[in-house]
Amino acid sequence: MAVYTEVSDADLSRFLAKYDVGEALSCKGIAEGVENSNYLVQTDRGSFILTLYEKRVKRSDLPFFLGLMEHLAKRDFPCPTPVAGKDGKSLRELCGRPAALITFLAGMWPRRILPFHCRELGQAMAFMHIASNGFSLTRPNDLSLQGWQGLIDATRDKADQVQKNLGQELDAEIEFLRSAWPKNLPHGIIHGDMFPDNTFFRGEQVSGVIDFYFACNDFLAYDLAVALNAWCFEKDSSFNITKARQLIAGYQSQRRLDQVEIAALPILARGSALRFLLTRLYDWLNHPVGAFVQPKDPLEYFNKLGFHRSVSSAAQYGLK
Amino acid sequence: MAVYTEVSDADLSRFLAKYDVGEALSCKGIAEGVENSNYLVQTDRGSFILTLYEKRVKRSDLPFFLGLMEHLAKRDFPCPTPVAGKDGKSLRELCGRPAALITFLAGMWPRRILPFHCRELGQAMAFMHIASNGFSLTRPNDLSLQGWQGLIDATRDKADQVQKNLGQELDAEIEFLRSAWPKNLPHGIIHGDMFPDNTFFRGEQVSGVIDFYFACNDFLAYDLAVALNAWCFEKDSSFNITKARQLIAGYQSQRRLDQVEIAALPILARGSALRFLLTRLYDWLNHPVGAFVQPKDPLEYFNKLGFHRSVSSAAQYGLK
Repeated sequence: MAVYTEVSDADLSRFLAKYDVGEALSCKGIAEGVENSNYLVQTDRGSFILTLYEKRVKRSDLPFFLGLMEHLAKRDFPCPTPVAGKDGKSLRELCGRPAALITFLAGMWPRRILPFHCRELGQAMAFMHIASNGFSLTRPNDLSLQGWQGLIDATRDKADQVQKNLGQELDAEIEFLRSAWPKNLPHGIIHGDMFPDNTFFRGEQVSGVIDFYFACNDFLAYDLAVALNAWCFEKDSSFNITKARQLIAGYQSQRRLDQVEIAALPILARGSALRFLLTRLYDWLNHPVGAFVQPKDPLEYFNKLGFHRSVSSAAQYGLK
Repeated sequence: MAVYTEVSDADLSRFLAKYDVGEALSCKGIAEGVENSNYLVQTDRGSFILTLYEKRVKRSDLPFFLGLMEHLAKRDFPCPTPVAGKDGKSLRELCGRPAALITFLAGMWPRRILPFHCRELGQAMAFMHIASNGFSLTRPNDLSLQGWQGLIDATRDKADQVQKNLGQELDAEIEFLRSAWPKNLPHGIIHGDMFPDNTFFRGEQVSGVIDFYFACNDFLAYDLAVALNAWCFEKDSSFNITKARQLIAGYQSQRRLDQVEIAALPILARGSALRFLLTRLYDWLNHPVGAFVQPKDPLEYFNKLGFHRSVSSAAQYGLK
């Protein structure tokens, strides 16, 4: 739920005049996304998303994110595309923030995940990995090992307030991951945050993927590990192997996984669980009173981490 | 900022199947309104607002609110209209809450109020008062004298936490208003909450008025008093008499005020300032930690009340 920056009707008119998109008919703040302010703008030519980038997004990363969307859309990957203004630019300022007008993507994200959603998501993810080939910019994953350590340092003092001995558990986990983390897997550009609320469906098919603001260069299989965590657990923290099988089969229908990637999946899944545990823990401990955004429960990811710790081989994710 | 109830894609499909509005293309929670959950739904036939009525709206009042919108729209007053389902009904259940699908109104609400906005608003308000004539249902104003006393009783203990001696001030004000409140002014159906964010403009004209969930039967001039408070003060609490003149002139261009109404305006303005002071004070003292909605400052209305207390006649609002 997020509209951090209020855009006035006059500011919006001045902003839209820089584009060839017609007259604004309405502009509604959207209660989605937690990092940026998003408005659904309707003009006499169609619908658009207006995004104002708030402080958690680094200004210097915006050319990577916007360029990636353009690159993917040109290769027919279904994702929003920044609209270029009359001056050819797609990134400008609005209300003192970097802002972009982005094409609107039809579809709804699934609230109740069924196995077919996972298969479709897997296919779309592999398509994204293939389509991002040849994109000229790079961006390191600042939420990998080094970033996790930074988050542990920033939460270590208070972690035990959330759960007894959580601090110790975090120390042990990062130590293990640092020693076991793969060094050499197929890599490329990953989405990094392909959760259900970033994946739109129309009927039984993916109509588009949004929110590329964690995209970066990393091991491709790490994206799959993120999705195993985000799509294949039930609310009671039990792992749904049918969904995992569908996810991986969907992925492999577009891009075969190497044996080294398959063998690395349990470790990558632990790392991905730790990543969301840590960012949620940080937000949990640091969200201001009366904030718009309800922080998400970090312990959901502690439970998922526990599952992956018990996994001895990728066979337990349904892989042969 | 408000989406209290999460509507799943499956629930939405089942709900929309009861209407002749086509297939859902998207559904976005809107960060507007504080009482209900609102979604902007786009289908292949157009845009709609889906409203789920949360607990602050009494179920038994919904036929009045929805019927009033229908009545006004039939008389060409620009407001949203509930869409009737295939069964002829416009009110049904969704996710355990009363819910209605409502036509979408183009336009944007003005963030920076200029005098012409006030004139237009005055005209639209008078039009609404005239157009609501003949509506068969009635609803008493539960936020008049008796309701204010109830809110004072509910906040009296803690009022001084917000400002020194605020409790005493409230007691004195309600006592004065109870003795001075008019008994017999032209009455009819009022909007009761015609704030800038409920009034949409396209260019320099009102394109529509939304949010009839405080509409009720009361003195027509009380609506004008609400608007004097909501539209004619600057951020520094100074009263802008140019805006007030435009508001009243716009109103009178459609419906002449009686001398008794004009004479009563200062009292009505005090009552209206107290009403918003009290509801904001109640929300300020009772909002849960981590709530989605940032409570509004009650003292803004304490300052406005102070201005009206200093007014000796309606001439000070720009009326002759």
